[in-house]
Amino acid sequence: MPIILVGGGSRSGKSRYALELAKQQGARLAFVATAQAFDGEMSDRIRKHREERDGAFTTLEEPLEVAAALERAGRDYDVIVVDCLTLWVSNLMLSDREIPTEELIAAVRAIPATVIFVSNEVGCGIVPENAMARRFRDLAGSLNQRVAAAASEVYWMAFGIPFKVK
Amino acid sequence: MPIILVGGGSRSGKSRYALELAKQQGARLAFVATAQAFDGEMSDRIRKHREERDGAFTTLEEPLEVAAALERAGRDYDVIVVDCLTLWVSNLMLSDREIPTEELIAAVRAIPATVIFVSNEVGCGIVPENAMARRFRDLAGSLNQRVAAAASEVYWMAFGIPFKVK
Amino acid sequence: MPIILVGGGSRSGKSRYALELAKQQGARLAFVATAQAFDGEMSDRIRKHREERDGAFTTLEEPLEVAAALERAGRDYDVIVVDCLTLWVSNLMLSDREIPTEELIAAVRAIPATVIFVSNEVGCGIVPENAMARRFRDLAGSLNQRVAAAASEVYWMAFGIPFKVK
Repeated sequence: MPIILVGGGSRSGKSRYALELAKQQGARLAFVATAQAFDGEMSDRIRKHREERDGAFTTLEEPLEVAAALERAGRDYDVIVVDCLTLWVSNLMLSDREIPTEELIAAVRAIPATVIFVSNEVGCGIVPENAMARRFRDLAGSLNQRVAAAASEVYWMAFGIPFKVK
Repeated sequence: MPIILVGGGSRSGKSRYALELAKQQGARLAFVATAQAFDGEMSDRIRKHREERDGAFTTLEEPLEVAAALERAGRDYDVIVVDCLTLWVSNLMLSDREIPTEELIAAVRAIPATVIFVSNEVGCGIVPENAMARRFRDLAGSLNQRVAAAASEVYWMAFGIPFKVK
Repeated sequence: MPIILVGGGSRSGKSRYALELAKQQGARLAFVATAQAFDGEMSDRIRKHREERDGAFTTLEEPLEVAAALERAGRDYDVIVVDCLTLWVSNLMLSDREIPTEELIAAVRAIPATVIFVSNEVGCGIVPENAMARRFRDLAGSLNQRVAAAASEVYWMAFGIPFKVK
Protein backbone atom coordinates (compact mmCIF):
# COMPACT_ATOMS: atom_id res chain seq x y z
CA MET A 1 0.00 0.00 0.00
CA PRO A 2 2.36 2.76 1.06
CA ILE A 3 4.72 4.21 -1.53
CA ILE A 4 8.15 5.63 -0.73
CA LEU A 5 10.30 7.35 -3.36
CA VAL A 6 14.09 7.53 -3.01
CA GLY A 7 15.43 9.68 -5.82
CA GLY A 8 18.63 11.44 -6.70
CA GLY A 9 21.49 11.67 -9.12
CA SER A 10 23.70 8.87 -10.29
CA ARG A 11 25.97 7.57 -7.49
CA SER A 12 24.06 9.48 -4.83
CA GLY A 13 23.49 6.46 -2.58
CA LYS A 14 19.86 5.87 -3.60
CA SER A 15 19.96 2.07 -3.76
CA ARG A 16 21.86 1.72 -0.51
CA TYR A 17 19.42 3.98 1.31
CA ALA A 18 16.38 2.21 -0.17
CA LEU A 19 17.72 -1.13 1.13
CA GLU A 20 18.28 0.37 4.58
CA LEU A 21 14.76 1.78 4.65
CA ALA A 22 13.34 -1.57 3.54
CA LYS A 23 15.01 -3.44 6.39
CA GLN A 24 13.52 -0.96 8.86
CA GLN A 25 10.03 -1.54 7.50
CA GLY A 26 9.65 -5.31 7.49
CA ALA A 27 11.16 -8.78 7.54
CA ARG A 28 10.09 -10.39 4.25
CA LEU A 29 11.98 -8.39 1.64
CA ALA A 30 11.95 -8.47 -2.16
CA PHE A 31 13.96 -6.58 -4.73
CA VAL A 32 12.60 -5.97 -8.22
CA ALA A 33 15.57 -5.31 -10.51
CA THR A 34 14.66 -3.54 -13.76
CA ALA A 35 18.24 -3.55 -15.08
CA GLN A 36 19.09 -5.59 -18.16
CA ALA A 37 22.66 -6.62 -18.86
CA PHE A 38 23.21 -5.52 -22.47
CA ASP A 39 26.96 -5.19 -22.08
CA GLY A 40 29.86 -5.79 -19.73
CA GLU A 41 29.59 -2.40 -18.04
CA MET A 42 25.95 -3.03 -17.16
CA SER A 43 26.70 -6.58 -15.99
CA ASP A 44 29.33 -5.16 -13.66
CA ARG A 45 26.88 -2.65 -12.25
CA ILE A 46 24.23 -5.33 -11.71
CA ARG A 47 26.75 -7.63 -10.00
CA LYS A 48 27.98 -4.83 -7.71
CA HIS A 49 24.44 -3.90 -6.74
CA ARG A 50 23.68 -7.56 -6.05
CA GLU A 51 26.69 -7.81 -3.75
CA GLU A 52 25.49 -4.74 -1.84
CA ARG A 53 22.26 -6.53 -1.06
CA ASP A 54 22.68 -9.48 1.20
CA GLY A 55 20.66 -12.63 1.52
CA ALA A 56 17.88 -10.63 3.17
CA PHE A 57 16.29 -9.84 -0.22
CA THR A 58 14.71 -12.13 -2.80
CA THR A 59 15.65 -10.75 -6.22
CA LEU A 60 13.03 -10.67 -8.98
CA GLU A 61 14.29 -9.56 -12.39
CA GLU A 62 11.63 -7.67 -14.28
CA PRO A 63 12.68 -5.15 -16.93
CA LEU A 64 9.17 -4.37 -18.22
CA GLU A 65 6.19 -5.85 -16.35
CA VAL A 66 6.82 -4.16 -13.02
CA ALA A 67 3.13 -3.72 -12.15
CA ALA A 68 2.50 -7.43 -12.70
CA ALA A 69 5.57 -8.34 -10.64
CA LEU A 70 4.28 -6.20 -7.77
CA GLU A 71 0.87 -7.84 -7.96
CA ARG A 72 2.43 -11.29 -7.84
CA ALA A 73 4.88 -10.52 -5.04
CA GLY A 74 2.72 -8.12 -3.06
CA ARG A 75 1.22 -10.71 -0.74
CA ASP A 76 4.41 -12.65 -0.02
CA TYR A 77 6.62 -9.78 1.08
CA ASP A 78 6.35 -6.91 3.54
CA VAL A 79 8.53 -4.55 1.55
CA ILE A 80 9.45 -4.51 -2.13
CA VAL A 81 12.24 -2.29 -3.45
CA VAL A 82 11.93 -1.43 -7.16
CA ASP A 83 15.33 -0.35 -8.51
CA CYS A 84 14.98 1.66 -10.63
CA LEU A 85 12.18 3.53 -12.36
CA THR A 86 14.45 5.31 -14.83
CA LEU A 87 15.81 2.04 -16.21
CA TRP A 88 12.21 0.83 -16.48
CA VAL A 89 11.35 3.92 -18.56
CA SER A 90 14.40 3.26 -20.71
CA ASN A 91 13.44 -0.42 -21.20
CA LEU A 92 9.87 0.53 -22.15
CA MET A 93 11.12 3.13 -24.64
CA LEU A 94 13.45 0.60 -26.26
CA SER A 95 10.46 -1.77 -26.57
CA ASP A 96 8.47 1.04 -28.13
CA ARG A 97 5.90 0.98 -25.36
CA GLU A 98 4.09 3.65 -23.36
CA ILE A 99 4.83 4.18 -19.66
CA PRO A 100 1.90 2.57 -17.78
CA THR A 101 2.13 5.00 -14.87
CA GLU A 102 -1.41 4.66 -13.55
CA GLU A 103 -1.28 0.88 -13.80
CA LEU A 104 1.89 0.94 -11.68
CA ILE A 105 0.31 3.14 -9.00
CA ALA A 106 -2.86 1.01 -9.01
CA ALA A 107 -0.78 -2.17 -8.57
CA VAL A 108 0.84 -0.77 -5.42
CA ARG A 109 -2.51 0.40 -4.09
CA ALA A 110 -3.88 -3.13 -4.50
CA ILE A 111 -1.24 -4.97 -2.46
CA PRO A 112 -0.50 -4.87 1.27
CA ALA A 113 3.30 -4.53 0.83
CA THR A 114 5.18 -1.24 1.15
CA VAL A 115 6.86 -0.39 -2.16
CA ILE A 116 10.07 1.64 -2.19
CA PHE A 117 10.83 3.05 -5.64
CA VAL A 118 14.34 4.10 -6.51
CA SER A 119 14.62 6.67 -9.30
CA ASN A 120 17.14 8.97 -10.93
CA GLU A 121 16.96 12.71 -11.27
CA VAL A 122 17.99 13.18 -14.90
CA GLY A 123 16.75 16.72 -15.63
CA CYS A 124 19.32 18.98 -13.95
CA GLY A 125 21.85 19.10 -16.76
CA ILE A 126 21.96 20.84 -20.10
CA VAL A 127 19.12 20.04 -22.55
CA PRO A 128 20.39 16.95 -24.44
CA GLU A 129 21.04 17.39 -28.17
CA ASN A 130 19.62 13.92 -28.81
CA ALA A 131 15.81 13.91 -29.27
CA MET A 132 15.39 10.47 -27.71
CA ALA A 133 17.33 11.61 -24.64
CA ARG A 134 15.02 14.63 -24.36
CA ARG A 135 12.00 12.34 -24.61
CA PHE A 136 13.48 10.03 -21.95
CA ARG A 137 14.05 13.03 -19.67
CA ASP A 138 10.42 14.10 -20.08
CA LEU A 139 9.02 10.62 -19.45
CA ALA A 140 11.27 9.94 -16.45
CA GLY A 141 10.53 13.35 -14.93
CA SER A 142 6.78 12.95 -15.37
CA LEU A 143 6.83 9.48 -13.83
CA ASN A 144 8.92 10.71 -10.89
CA GLN A 145 6.42 13.51 -10.27
CA ARG A 146 3.46 11.14 -10.38
CA VAL A 147 5.10 8.63 -8.03
CA ALA A 148 6.17 11.41 -5.65
CA ALA A 149 2.60 12.75 -5.60
CA ALA A 150 1.30 9.28 -4.66
CA ALA A 151 4.06 8.65 -2.11
CA SER A 152 3.82 9.13 1.63
CA GLU A 153 7.57 9.79 1.87
CA VAL A 154 9.95 11.28 -0.72
CA TYR A 155 13.72 11.53 -0.28
CA TRP A 156 16.20 13.57 -2.30
CA MET A 157 19.67 12.06 -2.00
CA ALA A 158 22.41 14.69 -1.66
CA PHE A 159 25.92 13.18 -1.74
CA GLY A 160 24.65 10.02 -0.05
CA ILE A 161 22.65 11.92 2.59
CA PRO A 162 18.88 11.31 2.40
CA PHE A 163 16.97 14.54 2.60
CA LYS A 164 13.23 14.18 3.20
CA VAL A 165 11.23 16.55 0.98
CA LYS A 166 7.85 14.94 1.78
CA MET B 1 7.94 44.21 -5.62
CA PRO B 2 8.45 40.80 -4.06
CA ILE B 3 10.42 38.21 -6.01
CA ILE B 4 9.84 34.46 -5.75
CA LEU B 5 12.05 31.92 -7.52
CA VAL B 6 10.79 28.46 -8.40
CA GLY B 7 13.68 26.45 -9.81
CA GLY B 8 14.49 22.86 -10.56
CA GLY B 9 15.31 20.36 -13.23
CA SER B 10 13.43 19.72 -16.41
CA ARG B 11 10.01 18.12 -15.75
CA SER B 12 10.23 18.80 -12.03
CA GLY B 13 6.85 20.53 -11.79
CA LYS B 14 8.23 24.09 -11.70
CA SER B 15 5.64 25.72 -13.96
CA ARG B 16 2.71 24.01 -12.31
CA TYR B 17 3.87 25.05 -8.86
CA ALA B 18 4.53 28.64 -9.97
CA LEU B 19 0.96 28.87 -11.27
CA GLU B 20 -0.41 27.48 -8.00
CA LEU B 21 1.63 29.99 -5.98
CA ALA B 22 0.44 32.82 -8.21
CA LYS B 23 -3.21 32.00 -7.64
CA GLN B 24 -2.64 32.06 -3.89
CA GLN B 25 -1.06 35.52 -4.08
CA GLY B 26 -3.58 37.54 -6.07
CA ALA B 27 -6.51 37.74 -8.45
CA ARG B 28 -5.18 39.61 -11.50
CA LEU B 29 -2.68 37.21 -13.02
CA ALA B 30 -0.28 37.50 -15.95
CA PHE B 31 2.08 35.01 -17.51
CA VAL B 32 5.18 36.16 -19.40
CA ALA B 33 6.19 33.35 -21.76
CA THR B 34 9.80 33.57 -22.94
CA ALA B 35 9.53 30.46 -25.15
CA GLN B 36 9.86 30.81 -28.91
CA ALA B 37 8.47 28.14 -31.21
CA PHE B 38 11.40 27.37 -33.54
CA ASP B 39 10.20 23.86 -34.30
CA GLY B 40 7.35 21.40 -33.84
CA GLU B 41 8.72 20.01 -30.57
CA MET B 42 8.85 23.48 -29.05
CA SER B 43 5.38 24.35 -30.39
CA ASP B 44 4.05 21.23 -28.68
CA ARG B 45 5.66 22.20 -25.38
CA ILE B 46 4.27 25.73 -25.59
CA ARG B 47 0.79 24.43 -26.41
CA LYS B 48 0.86 21.93 -23.52
CA HIS B 49 2.00 24.60 -21.09
CA ARG B 50 -0.78 26.89 -22.33
CA GLU B 51 -3.37 24.18 -21.73
CA GLU B 52 -2.09 23.75 -18.18
CA ARG B 53 -2.82 27.38 -17.48
CA ASP B 54 -6.47 28.18 -17.55
CA GLY B 55 -8.28 31.39 -18.35
CA ALA B 56 -7.07 32.86 -15.06
CA PHE B 57 -3.82 34.12 -16.66
CA THR B 58 -3.28 36.72 -19.38
CA THR B 59 -0.40 35.47 -21.53
CA LEU B 60 2.26 37.93 -22.71
CA GLU B 61 4.84 36.50 -25.12
CA GLU B 62 8.21 38.15 -24.62
CA PRO B 63 11.34 36.23 -25.60
CA LEU B 64 13.81 39.10 -24.99
CA GLU B 65 12.49 42.30 -23.39
CA VAL B 66 11.32 40.78 -20.11
CA ALA B 67 12.23 43.82 -17.97
CA ALA B 68 10.18 46.09 -20.26
CA ALA B 69 7.26 43.63 -20.21
CA LEU B 70 7.30 43.64 -16.40
CA GLU B 71 7.35 47.45 -16.33
CA ARG B 72 4.37 47.60 -18.68
CA ALA B 73 2.33 44.89 -16.92
CA GLY B 74 3.41 45.63 -13.37
CA ARG B 75 0.58 47.99 -12.54
CA ASP B 76 -2.24 45.97 -14.14
CA TYR B 77 -1.61 42.64 -12.44
CA ASP B 78 -1.13 41.45 -8.87
CA VAL B 79 1.13 38.56 -9.80
CA ILE B 80 3.25 37.94 -12.88
CA VAL B 81 4.79 34.55 -13.59
CA VAL B 82 7.87 34.67 -15.84
CA ASP B 83 8.43 31.22 -17.39
CA CYS B 84 11.33 30.73 -17.77
CA LEU B 85 14.61 32.51 -17.12
CA THR B 86 16.75 29.82 -18.76
CA LEU B 87 14.94 30.17 -22.10
CA TRP B 88 15.37 33.93 -21.77
CA VAL B 89 19.13 33.44 -21.35
CA SER B 90 19.12 31.15 -24.37
CA ASN B 91 17.17 33.69 -26.48
CA LEU B 92 19.56 36.49 -25.48
CA MET B 93 22.58 34.35 -26.35
CA LEU B 94 21.12 33.52 -29.77
CA SER B 95 20.60 37.26 -30.33
CA ASP B 96 24.20 37.88 -29.29
CA ARG B 97 23.16 40.04 -26.36
CA GLU B 98 24.31 40.33 -22.75
CA ILE B 99 22.06 39.19 -19.88
CA PRO B 100 20.61 42.41 -18.36
CA THR B 101 20.37 40.94 -14.88
CA GLU B 102 20.39 44.17 -12.88
CA GLU B 103 17.86 45.78 -15.23
CA LEU B 104 15.56 42.80 -14.62
CA ILE B 105 15.85 43.05 -10.83
CA ALA B 106 15.35 46.84 -10.98
CA ALA B 107 12.19 46.39 -13.09
CA VAL B 108 10.65 44.14 -10.44
CA ARG B 109 11.65 46.51 -7.67
CA ALA B 110 9.88 49.36 -9.49
CA ILE B 111 6.46 47.70 -9.84
CA PRO B 112 3.87 46.76 -7.20
CA ALA B 113 3.23 43.25 -8.60
CA THR B 114 4.74 40.09 -7.17
CA VAL B 115 6.94 38.41 -9.76
CA ILE B 116 7.40 34.63 -9.72
CA PHE B 117 10.36 33.53 -11.82
CA VAL B 118 10.57 29.97 -13.08
CA SER B 119 14.07 28.75 -13.87
CA ASN B 120 15.96 25.55 -14.64
CA GLU B 121 18.84 24.03 -12.77
CA VAL B 122 21.20 23.13 -15.62
CA GLY B 123 24.51 22.70 -13.79
CA CYS B 124 24.20 19.28 -12.11
CA GLY B 125 25.31 17.13 -15.04
CA ILE B 126 28.65 16.45 -16.65
CA VAL B 127 30.55 19.49 -18.03
CA PRO B 128 29.22 19.85 -21.61
CA GLU B 129 31.70 19.30 -24.42
CA ASN B 130 30.15 22.17 -26.37
CA ALA B 131 31.63 25.59 -25.46
CA MET B 132 28.34 27.41 -26.04
CA ALA B 133 26.56 24.99 -23.71
CA ARG B 134 29.21 25.68 -21.04
CA ARG B 135 28.72 29.42 -21.51
CA PHE B 136 24.93 28.99 -21.25
CA ARG B 137 25.37 26.99 -18.04
CA ASP B 138 27.52 29.76 -16.55
CA LEU B 139 25.12 32.54 -17.53
CA ALA B 140 22.01 30.67 -16.37
CA GLY B 141 23.64 29.71 -13.08
CA SER B 142 24.81 33.26 -12.39
CA LEU B 143 21.36 34.67 -13.16
CA ASN B 144 19.69 32.09 -10.92
CA GLN B 145 22.03 33.01 -8.07
CA ARG B 146 21.36 36.73 -8.48
CA VAL B 147 17.57 36.26 -8.63
CA ALA B 148 17.65 33.90 -5.62
CA ALA B 149 19.67 36.48 -3.66
CA ALA B 150 17.04 39.15 -4.45
CA ALA B 151 14.09 36.83 -3.76
CA SER B 152 12.09 36.60 -0.57
CA GLU B 153 11.23 32.96 -1.28
CA VAL B 154 13.20 30.32 -3.20
CA TYR B 155 11.93 26.82 -3.97
CA TRP B 156 13.90 23.80 -5.20
CA MET B 157 11.57 21.38 -6.96
CA ALA B 158 12.33 17.73 -6.17
CA PHE B 159 10.23 15.27 -8.24
CA GLY B 160 7.34 17.75 -8.27
CA ILE B 161 7.59 18.52 -4.54
CA PRO B 162 8.45 22.16 -3.77
CA PHE B 163 11.17 22.39 -1.18
CA LYS B 164 11.69 25.86 0.31
CA VAL B 165 15.39 26.70 0.60
CA LYS B 166 14.83 30.38 1.44
CA MET C 1 39.97 17.53 12.05
CA PRO C 2 36.44 18.50 11.17
CA ILE C 3 35.29 18.05 7.58
CA ILE C 4 32.68 20.25 5.89
CA LEU C 5 31.36 19.52 2.40
CA VAL C 6 29.91 22.27 0.22
CA GLY C 7 28.51 20.69 -2.92
CA GLY C 8 26.23 21.62 -5.75
CA GLY C 9 25.94 22.17 -9.46
CA SER C 10 28.14 24.33 -11.62
CA ARG C 11 27.67 28.05 -10.86
CA SER C 12 25.68 27.34 -7.72
CA GLY C 13 27.79 29.55 -5.45
CA LYS C 14 29.78 26.71 -3.85
CA SER C 15 33.18 28.40 -3.83
CA ARG C 16 31.83 31.70 -2.54
CA TYR C 17 29.98 30.00 0.29
CA ALA C 18 32.98 27.84 1.21
CA LEU C 19 35.10 31.00 1.54
CA GLU C 20 32.45 32.64 3.72
CA LEU C 21 32.27 29.59 5.97
CA ALA C 22 36.06 29.47 6.23
CA LYS C 23 36.25 33.07 7.43
CA GLN C 24 33.69 32.32 10.13
CA GLN C 25 35.76 29.38 11.39
CA GLY C 26 39.22 30.80 11.81
CA ALA C 27 41.83 33.46 11.11
CA ARG C 28 44.67 31.61 9.37
CA LEU C 29 43.19 30.56 6.05
CA ALA C 30 44.53 28.47 3.18
CA PHE C 31 43.06 27.57 -0.18
CA VAL C 32 44.11 24.42 -2.01
CA ALA C 33 43.36 24.92 -5.70
CA THR C 34 43.14 21.68 -7.69
CA ALA C 35 42.48 23.46 -11.01
CA GLN C 36 45.06 23.25 -13.79
CA ALA C 37 45.10 25.83 -16.56
CA PHE C 38 45.14 23.71 -19.74
CA ASP C 39 43.55 26.42 -21.89
CA GLY C 40 42.40 30.03 -21.94
CA GLU C 41 38.90 29.23 -20.68
CA MET C 42 40.31 27.46 -17.63
CA SER C 43 42.85 30.24 -17.02
CA ASP C 44 40.01 32.73 -17.02
CA ARG C 45 38.05 30.68 -14.49
CA ILE C 46 41.09 30.33 -12.23
CA ARG C 47 41.80 34.06 -12.41
CA LYS C 48 38.16 34.95 -11.62
CA HIS C 49 38.11 32.59 -8.66
CA ARG C 50 41.38 34.09 -7.42
CA GLU C 51 39.90 37.58 -7.59
CA GLU C 52 36.92 36.42 -5.55
CA ARG C 53 39.25 35.40 -2.76
CA ASP C 54 40.97 38.29 -1.13
CA GLY C 55 44.31 38.50 0.62
CA ALA C 56 42.84 36.55 3.54
CA PHE C 57 43.75 33.19 1.94
CA THR C 58 47.13 31.69 1.14
CA THR C 59 46.74 29.81 -2.16
CA LEU C 60 48.40 26.41 -2.57
CA GLU C 61 48.16 24.90 -6.06
CA GLU C 62 47.93 21.13 -5.89
CA PRO C 63 46.25 19.26 -8.73
CA LEU C 64 47.08 15.73 -7.51
CA GLU C 65 48.70 15.38 -4.07
CA VAL C 66 45.90 16.90 -2.02
CA ALA C 67 46.36 14.61 0.99
CA ALA C 68 50.04 15.53 1.18
CA ALA C 69 49.22 19.23 0.82
CA LEU C 70 46.75 18.97 3.72
CA GLU C 71 49.34 17.21 5.86
CA ARG C 72 51.90 19.93 5.15
CA ALA C 73 49.52 22.87 5.67
CA GLY C 74 47.40 21.36 8.44
CA ARG C 75 49.38 22.78 11.31
CA ASP C 76 49.89 26.28 9.92
CA TYR C 77 46.27 27.14 9.16
CA ASP C 78 42.98 27.04 11.05
CA VAL C 79 40.86 26.38 7.98
CA ILE C 80 41.77 24.94 4.58
CA VAL C 81 39.37 25.15 1.65
CA VAL C 82 39.94 22.49 -1.03
CA ASP C 83 38.36 23.63 -4.32
CA CYS C 84 37.37 21.31 -5.82
CA LEU C 85 37.16 17.53 -5.44
CA THR C 86 35.67 16.94 -8.89
CA LEU C 87 38.64 18.58 -10.63
CA TRP C 88 40.91 16.49 -8.44
CA VAL C 89 39.12 13.34 -9.65
CA SER C 90 39.49 14.56 -13.22
CA ASN C 91 43.22 15.27 -12.76
CA LEU C 92 43.79 11.83 -11.24
CA MET C 93 41.91 10.14 -14.10
CA LEU C 94 43.99 12.02 -16.67
CA SER C 95 47.13 10.83 -14.84
CA ASP C 96 45.76 7.28 -14.91
CA ARG C 97 45.71 7.07 -11.13
CA GLU C 98 43.23 5.70 -8.59
CA ILE C 99 41.29 8.05 -6.30
CA PRO C 100 43.00 7.80 -2.89
CA THR C 101 39.81 8.47 -0.96
CA GLU C 102 40.78 6.87 2.35
CA GLU C 103 44.18 8.54 2.29
CA LEU C 104 42.43 11.89 1.87
CA ILE C 105 40.08 11.31 4.80
CA ALA C 106 42.97 10.06 6.96
CA ALA C 107 45.00 13.19 6.14
CA VAL C 108 42.22 15.42 7.42
CA ARG C 109 41.76 13.30 10.52
CA ALA C 110 45.47 13.71 11.30
CA ILE C 111 45.62 17.52 11.26
CA PRO C 112 44.07 20.08 13.61
CA ALA C 113 42.72 22.32 10.80
CA THR C 114 39.11 22.32 9.64
CA VAL C 115 38.92 21.28 5.99
CA ILE C 116 36.11 22.57 3.78
CA PHE C 117 35.78 20.54 0.59
CA VAL C 118 34.04 22.04 -2.43
CA SER C 119 32.60 19.54 -4.88
CA ASN C 120 30.29 19.34 -7.88
CA GLU C 121 27.13 17.35 -8.24
CA VAL C 122 27.60 15.82 -11.70
CA GLY C 123 25.09 12.96 -11.65
CA CYS C 124 21.71 14.67 -12.16
CA GLY C 125 21.75 14.83 -15.95
CA ILE C 126 21.27 12.25 -18.67
CA VAL C 127 23.69 9.27 -18.66
CA PRO C 128 26.67 10.50 -20.75
CA GLU C 129 27.31 8.69 -24.03
CA ASN C 130 31.05 8.92 -23.40
CA ALA C 131 32.40 5.99 -21.30
CA MET C 132 35.07 8.12 -19.65
CA ALA C 133 32.43 10.66 -18.60
CA ARG C 134 30.38 7.84 -17.07
CA ARG C 135 33.44 6.64 -15.19
CA PHE C 136 34.16 10.19 -13.98
CA ARG C 137 30.56 10.49 -12.80
CA ASP C 138 30.85 7.26 -10.82
CA LEU C 139 34.17 8.19 -9.23
CA ALA C 140 33.08 11.74 -8.36
CA GLY C 141 29.77 10.54 -6.92
CA SER C 142 31.45 7.84 -4.81
CA LEU C 143 34.01 10.31 -3.47
CA ASN C 144 31.29 12.84 -2.65
CA GLN C 145 29.37 10.17 -0.73
CA ARG C 146 32.43 9.12 1.25
CA VAL C 147 33.37 12.71 2.13
CA ALA C 148 29.78 13.52 3.08
CA ALA C 149 29.66 10.45 5.35
CA ALA C 150 32.85 11.64 7.10
CA ALA C 151 31.72 15.27 7.30
CA SER C 152 30.12 16.96 10.29
CA GLU C 153 28.31 19.42 8.00
CA VAL C 154 27.10 18.97 4.41
CA TYR C 155 25.55 21.73 2.30
CA TRP C 156 23.63 21.40 -0.97
CA MET C 157 23.80 24.68 -2.89
CA ALA C 158 20.50 25.60 -4.55
CA PHE C 159 20.76 28.69 -6.78
CA GLY C 160 23.41 30.18 -4.49
CA ILE C 161 21.47 29.37 -1.31
CA PRO C 162 23.24 26.93 1.03
CA PHE C 163 20.91 24.24 2.22
CA LYS C 164 22.18 22.12 5.11
CA VAL C 165 21.43 18.43 4.56
CA LYS C 166 23.63 17.23 7.45
